[in-house]
Amino acid sequence: MFFPQRGVAGTSKANLIFANMIRIAIVGYGNIGRYSVDAVKAACDMELVGIVRRSGSAPVHGIRTVTDIEELGKIDVALLCTPTRSVQETALPLLTKGIHTVDSFDIHGDIVNLRRALGEQARKSHSVSIISAGWDPGTDSVMRTLMLAMAPKGITYTNFGPGMSMGHSVVARSKEGVADALSLTIPTGSGVHRRMVYVVVKEGYSFADVEKAIKSDTYFCYDETHVIEVPDIDSLRDMGHGVLMERKGVSGTTQNQMFRYEMRINNPALTAQVMTACARASMRLNPGCYTLPEIAPMDLLPGDREDLVRQLV
Amino acid sequence: MFFPQRGVAGTSKANLIFANMIRIAIVGYGNIGRYSVDAVKAACDMELVGIVRRSGSAPVHGIRTVTDIEELGKIDVALLCTPTRSVQETALPLLTKGIHTVDSFDIHGDIVNLRRALGEQARKSHSVSIISAGWDPGTDSVMRTLMLAMAPKGITYTNFGPGMSMGHSVVARSKEGVADALSLTIPTGSGVHRRMVYVVVKEGYSFADVEKAIKSDTYFCYDETHVIEVPDIDSLRDMGHGVLMERKGVSGTTQNQMFRYEMRINNPALTAQVMTACARASMRLNPGCYTLPEIAPMDLLPGDREDLVRQLV
Repeated sequence: MFFPQRGVAGTSKANLIFANMIRIAIVGYGNIGRYSVDAVKAACDMELVGIVRRSGSAPVHGIRTVTDIEELGKIDVALLCTPTRSVQETALPLLTKGIHTVDSFDIHGDIVNLRRALGEQARKSHSVSIISAGWDPGTDSVMRTLMLAMAPKGITYTNFGPGMSMGHSVVARSKEGVADALSLTIPTGSGVHRRMVYVVVKEGYSFADVEKAIKSDTYFCYDETHVIEVPDIDSLRDMGHGVLMERKGVSGTTQNQMFRYEMRINNPALTAQVMTACARASMRLNPGCYTLPEIAPMDLLPGDREDLVRQLV
Repeated sequence: MFFPQRGVAGTSKANLIFANMIRIAIVGYGNIGRYSVDAVKAACDMELVGIVRRSGSAPVHGIRTVTDIEELGKIDVALLCTPTRSVQETALPLLTKGIHTVDSFDIHGDIVNLRRALGEQARKSHSVSIISAGWDPGTDSVMRTLMLAMAPKGITYTNFGPGMSMGHSVVARSKEGVADALSLTIPTGSGVHRRMVYVVVKEGYSFADVEKAIKSDTYFCYDETHVIEVPDIDSLRDMGHGVLMERKGVSGTTQNQMFRYEMRINNPALTAQVMTACARASMRLNPGCYTLPEIAPMDLLPGDREDLVRQLV
């Protein structure tokens, strides 16, 4: 399990030369793809070999842009920055080629199935897939796991926001008469959330109808939902997000053990950073498919193992 | 890496029957030993086989108490609830017998050496040792590791308290003229701490001399230290403790990523719970010596792996 390497965690790229740089390809170039470029470039032990985009997409300035990953030569890890729904079809052929994959698949209910499908192929091809490697699912999942280990009896509440929900915004935008929409998640405590949905209504449509269509959708009908008409969405866009996780539980027979984890972050920047750290971990794992709590956290970091123990434990 | 087991995380012992209960011995019966009895008894997949105490110690009511672990028959894991300084000498012969060990060794500067010494023996004897398995070092170390992975550039501050520092209390008690002492750690932010030292002065000794002796000790001379004379220590004892960990850092090139972790806990109860969870993890690891960030967090939990992924990721 130990992979001696040169370098120290947290030092900048300029100070280090790694004997074997991890060769990374970024697949897809939306928000997370863009931030992944930053994260991979900042990593002392990685080389960004190129970006894979659909044919017809513009090349990215200063980075080799291709439509087929084969054009990039040897790739160790592909960061899948594609939409969640295309993760499985994108990952399978890469794993078959022996390329490790990392994604931020975020449909909580489908994670077990994805883990089975990619795990089977990864074990066959001696490759590694790390799935749902963002912040929730992702690092939040690690926190939930750790809190449960520290206090096995009790309740963990994960409160999201304030921040934009991509999934809810897409659903709101899909309604008839909606020109543009943004759904903000507001935590009201105990894992209960309010949805503030800002909509631009198309000419000739009624706001009341749009409001009704949104509020009756299963994405919204179980939460307190407010729909607000606005002239423009762009001025409301903000990629900041937040989490407040709380657990009150029991260690052994001792009650009232209190834990609290909070973060305020740029959403795609953190997702890209976690994916990049997982690319490193994928080089250290046995073939198979893993979620974040199934990985030793220290495998996420570069540097000599004893130095890391000295610095962090 | 996957060990299918019956049972569900977080359910009570009564609901579950595990085919192979993990056979646990508790070595030492101070504060952490006592709380370990509670934690092991509450674990659905463990059997507390007995307690190992020095000869001459009283037997513990309702639990087999022995002076030699061999008397207990087959033991899978020994929880070392002995003083930190005797961890190495206690662990080595157990590892040699093929018994896994878990301790809460807490001298940060000596962890790497202990890891080497126990790791060498563990690999020879095909056993597993998990060291420094408390909350700091321990679960806090996992949090520091994860925060560094999420924002590789920046500073993490770990603030302790308010709570009693065992180490500092021992040093204060060792001074001439001190009948009893308790050192409280008060966080003042940015990882800086104030020490409030409460002392009972022996008859015939001067408080001013005691105060000077404490303040000039290397345990205290670098911190803001206040020494206060009291008639009695017992009424001040409280095993509650706390941590506030904060990181402001950079993910990729995105500044101002903010993370915060806070807990308010019963100190020995949490230590014992973490050690118990690590006993479980020791059954799933390759021979060697590990600190907590080197272990996949999900290995700390009982239950079917896919159920855990469904519940926590």
